[in-house]
Amino acid sequence: MEELNIKGQRAKKASYVLSGLSSIDKNKGLKAVADALLLNEKAIIEANKIDVLNAEKNGIKGSLVDRLTLDSKRIKSMAEGIEQIIQLDDPIGEVMWMKKRPNDLEIGKKIVPLGVIGIIYEARPNVTVDAFALCFKTGNAVILRGGKEAINSNLKIIEIIKNALVSADMPSDAVSLIEDTSRETATNMMRLNEYLDVLIPRGGAGLIQAVVNNSTVPVIETGVGNCHIFVDKEANLEMAKDILVNAKTQRPGVCNACESLVVHGDVAKEFLPMACKALREHNVTIVGDNIAKSIVTDIEEASEEDYRTEYLDYKISVKVVNDIDEAINHINKNNTKHSESIITENYTNARRFLNEIDAAAVYVNASTRFTDGFEFGFGAEIGISTQKLHARGPMGLRELTTTKYVIYGNGQVRN
Amino acid sequence: MEELNIKGQRAKKASYVLSGLSSIDKNKGLKAVADALLLNEKAIIEANKIDVLNAEKNGIKGSLVDRLTLDSKRIKSMAEGIEQIIQLDDPIGEVMWMKKRPNDLEIGKKIVPLGVIGIIYEARPNVTVDAFALCFKTGNAVILRGGKEAINSNLKIIEIIKNALVSADMPSDAVSLIEDTSRETATNMMRLNEYLDVLIPRGGAGLIQAVVNNSTVPVIETGVGNCHIFVDKEANLEMAKDILVNAKTQRPGVCNACESLVVHGDVAKEFLPMACKALREHNVTIVGDNIAKSIVTDIEEASEEDYRTEYLDYKISVKVVNDIDEAINHINKNNTKHSESIITENYTNARRFLNEIDAAAVYVNASTRFTDGFEFGFGAEIGISTQKLHARGPMGLRELTTTKYVIYGNGQVRN
Repeated sequence: MEELNIKGQRAKKASYVLSGLSSIDKNKGLKAVADALLLNEKAIIEANKIDVLNAEKNGIKGSLVDRLTLDSKRIKSMAEGIEQIIQLDDPIGEVMWMKKRPNDLEIGKKIVPLGVIGIIYEARPNVTVDAFALCFKTGNAVILRGGKEAINSNLKIIEIIKNALVSADMPSDAVSLIEDTSRETATNMMRLNEYLDVLIPRGGAGLIQAVVNNSTVPVIETGVGNCHIFVDKEANLEMAKDILVNAKTQRPGVCNACESLVVHGDVAKEFLPMACKALREHNVTIVGDNIAKSIVTDIEEASEEDYRTEYLDYKISVKVVNDIDEAINHINKNNTKHSESIITENYTNARRFLNEIDAAAVYVNASTRFTDGFEFGFGAEIGISTQKLHARGPMGLRELTTTKYVIYGNGQVRN
Repeated sequence: MEELNIKGQRAKKASYVLSGLSSIDKNKGLKAVADALLLNEKAIIEANKIDVLNAEKNGIKGSLVDRLTLDSKRIKSMAEGIEQIIQLDDPIGEVMWMKKRPNDLEIGKKIVPLGVIGIIYEARPNVTVDAFALCFKTGNAVILRGGKEAINSNLKIIEIIKNALVSADMPSDAVSLIEDTSRETATNMMRLNEYLDVLIPRGGAGLIQAVVNNSTVPVIETGVGNCHIFVDKEANLEMAKDILVNAKTQRPGVCNACESLVVHGDVAKEFLPMACKALREHNVTIVGDNIAKSIVTDIEEASEEDYRTEYLDYKISVKVVNDIDEAINHINKNNTKHSESIITENYTNARRFLNEIDAAAVYVNASTRFTDGFEFGFGAEIGISTQKLHARGPMGLRELTTTKYVIYGNGQVRN
């Protein structure tokens, strides 16, 4: 707990300084960090090599080692990410509304930083830079707890960021890294209510569930996506096929990829053969219900569990339904409230799907892959919230803020 | 768990119906409930009598028995509360913004209900009606868990509400009461993530802390207020005295009452005698630091604990500071982020206080007692949030909603 308490206290203190910085100053700090990352590329790659060698020695699988690895190009891309964040409008200080009450009190709702944000993540050192930059731009201090696999990379990156902040006359406690990567310390961090205003887990379903189950600090749950495409009776089937293939195969390992196809029974005979053929060209494994199996013979049987599974892989489940009511019920029962799309030319069904599906993003005639802060035009993203409190869907800078009421009086007392 | 699961499942199902109701229908339902409460006044008072007799038998203290007691006037006031909520604008369905992306996707951010709201509260049966009406107006289902002291009153009220809803063709599962008032069931309710979208505790500090510590459902923390009045060097001292007396004594048992006075050293000698005299006329006990004690002799010594205490009583702590920096540090260290006020004629200090104090509501030259949904013009209030996530300060109808992104496409896929 000692490391957590010391860093928590310092972050809290820094957060008060950060909340008063001008956008000009914050951008100056960010620019110093971007420059320092490029300048210290060699040192970062050296530290990263230790992590990569350890990972390979410990038999960690290739895709994870790839996410962990930093090279010149990736460091350049991290610095470019900061430059992009510099260009974004600073939301802090905006008064959303101000009104005069009958007793002459003037009450305004003002956007202010959250304070201290905790981020628990896995072995992706780019998150270290990215999370710092988004939090700093919005005047928040951040306490990072990355995976032990990336500890050497993270220590070096944090050292560089802190030095750059000092050189730009900014508080270096704007960012800190929890160096003790034990599970116990992570659990203690989830209960650091005295210093943390919010905790954002970034990573797989296991990490997110552990944070939700153990945290007393308010959490923003991110990222698990069991997303559906519903092909309605009056769908343009060529469009449906293209959208389905895109949503399933363009990048299957991400949360907004499609995991399940729901097809109206009236078009299943026509649509499933063409859809399955197109999916198979991308080596997608297909499981489905009895009707789907009777139409396309080499579909394997889907279990109830399949319909609840986020494969994050070249695999999809298929369900044939009698009508839009069954489709909506099936999706609301099995989805993770992330992104859902209907393919239809029918006005009433489009409207019903948009209104009745319970999800962060609901689409008509488009791929679910668009649910992301950049595609939504936010310019940056700290994650995609699948909860309903505070933020829902892609979270940009605005979602890293809260509000405070500012009230101007001239002696008012309450009767 | 069985009661929780059954009621959770039913509430979830009802929430999908509620989210699609028009404002006209919801108001019709509310009107039916308001009428039914008035019509069944006798039955409510009869049921309430059992609770009141039990409370008196169990030696529950007078102020709590008073809160528990319902009479004709209070039932009328509950019905009037519903009529007021009927008059308010329904926030559901508003599209906050919609924009067209370069790829022709039209993306809009729409206000929708949260879904199912859980409320854990104590022995105030008026909360039963109030919470139902606010949730129903915003298209949410609500699961209520009130204190065991009010169980007979609550059962009767819920029966009346459910019957009224059925008579108005509304789903009666829009509201349910957990009849098992054991602590164990309350704890299980805090982990009912499958059905609850948010949990709002309403009551004392102990209840709120228990919910924060045990809940895996997202919580909105409400209500604890260790509020300060800071009397700056250049204050109008008469105004300061009036505001202080109002904030401390107008209703000391509520969260926006003042608990601590902070005085600039340069005016302490002039202000403290007049302030203490005025407070003593209201029988306020005063504790303070050494400087305060040296100015007003019969002030008792304040401990560090005093400065952290929400008395909710005729008692106040006093701290003398050297400058506004010390005042801001003292307040940020000890407050509960609720409501804070500076009394000053100095422009820069007013601006600094508004910017640098970390609280839901920051005032210049007004009583902290105004932090409340009605005074802020929201027309209703479900509580006052002292956390930063989702809602901060008084929560009206808008705070019982979330958003969803609605996206209109014409075949877009991601590159």
